[in-house]
Amino acid sequence: MIVLDGLGGLPREPGGPTELESARTPHLDALAARSELGLTVPVAPGITPGSGPGHLALFGYDPVQHAIGRGGLEALGVDIELGPSDLAARGNFCSVDRAGVLTDRRAGRIPTELNQELCGLLRTIRVEGSEFILKTVKEHRFAFVARGPGLDDALTETDPQRTGVAVPPVRAVQPGSEKAARVVNRFIEQARLKLAERRPANMILLRGFAAAPVLPTFQERYALHAAAIAVQGMYRGVARLVGMQVLALAGDTLSDEFDALEARWAEFDFFYLHVKRTDTAGEQGDFDGKVRAIEDVDAQLPRVLALDPDVVIIGGDHSSPAVLRSHSWHPVPLMLYSRYARSGGSVEFGERACARGSLGRLPATDVMPLALAHAGRIAKYGA
Amino acid sequence: MIVLDGLGGLPREPGGPTELESARTPHLDALAARSELGLTVPVAPGITPGSGPGHLALFGYDPVQHAIGRGGLEALGVDIELGPSDLAARGNFCSVDRAGVLTDRRAGRIPTELNQELCGLLRTIRVEGSEFILKTVKEHRFAFVARGPGLDDALTETDPQRTGVAVPPVRAVQPGSEKAARVVNRFIEQARLKLAERRPANMILLRGFAAAPVLPTFQERYALHAAAIAVQGMYRGVARLVGMQVLALAGDTLSDEFDALEARWAEFDFFYLHVKRTDTAGEQGDFDGKVRAIEDVDAQLPRVLALDPDVVIIGGDHSSPAVLRSHSWHPVPLMLYSRYARSGGSVEFGERACARGSLGRLPATDVMPLALAHAGRIAKYGA
Repeated sequence: MIVLDGLGGLPREPGGPTELESARTPHLDALAARSELGLTVPVAPGITPGSGPGHLALFGYDPVQHAIGRGGLEALGVDIELGPSDLAARGNFCSVDRAGVLTDRRAGRIPTELNQELCGLLRTIRVEGSEFILKTVKEHRFAFVARGPGLDDALTETDPQRTGVAVPPVRAVQPGSEKAARVVNRFIEQARLKLAERRPANMILLRGFAAAPVLPTFQERYALHAAAIAVQGMYRGVARLVGMQVLALAGDTLSDEFDALEARWAEFDFFYLHVKRTDTAGEQGDFDGKVRAIEDVDAQLPRVLALDPDVVIIGGDHSSPAVLRSHSWHPVPLMLYSRYARSGGSVEFGERACARGSLGRLPATDVMPLALAHAGRIAKYGA
Repeated sequence: MIVLDGLGGLPREPGGPTELESARTPHLDALAARSELGLTVPVAPGITPGSGPGHLALFGYDPVQHAIGRGGLEALGVDIELGPSDLAARGNFCSVDRAGVLTDRRAGRIPTELNQELCGLLRTIRVEGSEFILKTVKEHRFAFVARGPGLDDALTETDPQRTGVAVPPVRAVQPGSEKAARVVNRFIEQARLKLAERRPANMILLRGFAAAPVLPTFQERYALHAAAIAVQGMYRGVARLVGMQVLALAGDTLSDEFDALEARWAEFDFFYLHVKRTDTAGEQGDFDGKVRAIEDVDAQLPRVLALDPDVVIIGGDHSSPAVLRSHSWHPVPLMLYSRYARSGGSVEFGERACARGSLGRLPATDVMPLALAHAGRIAKYGA
């Protein structure tokens, strides 16, 4: 499963070709002629998904039922391995005066290096058998994880979203979260003491509390021994949540990713390979950059086919049309190759071809069941 | 949103063009080339919808969950503004003999003028703080609304559907409807006394009891300030149920409707414009009349486009093929225009073009979420 992040696009001029239709993709087009095409709807018609829900849907998990909170995504993004007894949040270093009144919510955007030093300081705190993982994101931002038994996430935030007021403690909004409130408040109190002399970064704010979602794994759900190949933390993190083994890469280029695919091919039943650059270009409004990113994937495709896979899925977690400079609600091109595909209907991989494809418009959560079927891995239902 | 009532059709001869495909529609065809096309399924595959469910679905409300009872539709059809404490029913004037035995369920189809006079007579009745709204439909038929607190609609009907028997009182079929049963029975008793000397119309029958459905409004659900442009009461009524402001019209022609659209354009975020004649012709088996009705809408379309709308939806609440002389279950052509449409796949608006369209076959309830997305009015889901 090759996921081109934000793959779906729109024409630069009305009636013209999209990014994918503009790209010279001889290998993708040749594979399209041997595949079934369709357009995936990641969450629901009209809904623009974030990358988390978009990926969960492609992996076959209902993205509404399995919401990943903001704190969880921040932790995944810096490669923290979230477990079932983890409570995650987004953190800021901030400034308070002698009376404890908030004077700067971002502590003057301290250098990332100072953030790293301060995170190391706070990582030593222990409260009631819980430990704390803090990992620098950038400048004043860090990911926060409290790890211990019974830490529910129904908590208020401590960021008042304005200066001139005291930083409130967290409060439990459900009875089951009282322990978590106590543990987090004691952590904050100890952090305050440890940071007292480190002005401007002499206090912290925590928001977006979220327990790690507990998902059935690919092994449990599909009996697949699955591996993930991705450069950015968030995608590695989401893959880890569904039980994939995240592979080490020699570097962070596209070629490094396909190198890992080749090198580890014999070890796994399923590979997820993530391509980030399509989305980055789309979000920057860089139509031509997105075209090139797609062409670069096309150039790697023969390496995949040389491995003789039973099933190849090529799609995206959502659309990111360059003309919109953002994620969008448009359904996403999908190609499913196997020797049992009802192929022959298309000669290219693109939005219009997929709209006419034999898979039609399908919920993204249907992709994994179809792929498993094409791999001969779903038993007959009924007699 | 322009709703051509009963838009979907069938060929006059097998393999020939439908009404929509026969119509000369240069403006609709040109817009189709810049739009996404599909076929809407109003309620469920194979289900022929009434206009009430067909409209609710297009407005984004599950038409099964939000059923509008017969009594409610009759009241909406004569422009009664239904509120949450209203209990509606369909009424007949009828004839009984001295012993109270039903001799004519339609009172000899009395003249509409007499009906109007008698409705005025009964409108003065008051029972336990409830008032009664009676409005003439035609001949012996009237719409009945009891307005007061605690009037549940789980009531049996008083129409025995045959003559030679007494008119039964209503009975509560659930404990919560006992007050309503008492109030309605007292109303009927007083009506009997007031009508005693008005033979043949010396009694009434009530059936199809229905509380007014309480629906979240367009404002609550979509944050849209919405207006309705429709000539017939039922469509005005359904629009009112979902919180649209029903606009006054200078006359009852198609041109009057588009005049109102132009005149009030700046005041609202959303317009629903209803076209009745397509359905009337279809139900009359008038293929050519339906073709002309579609062509008349096509002629008005440039006036809409001149207003530079963000999104244009053109569809129908159900199909009414002239060859069937009735509503039908066939899915309904839909066109969705916005500058962010993935257009270019079609050069005409018709059933076959819509069947191949990029929206595929979609539940009618998906139309509003898609339209809101194209208008940039739905926030991203997840990060």
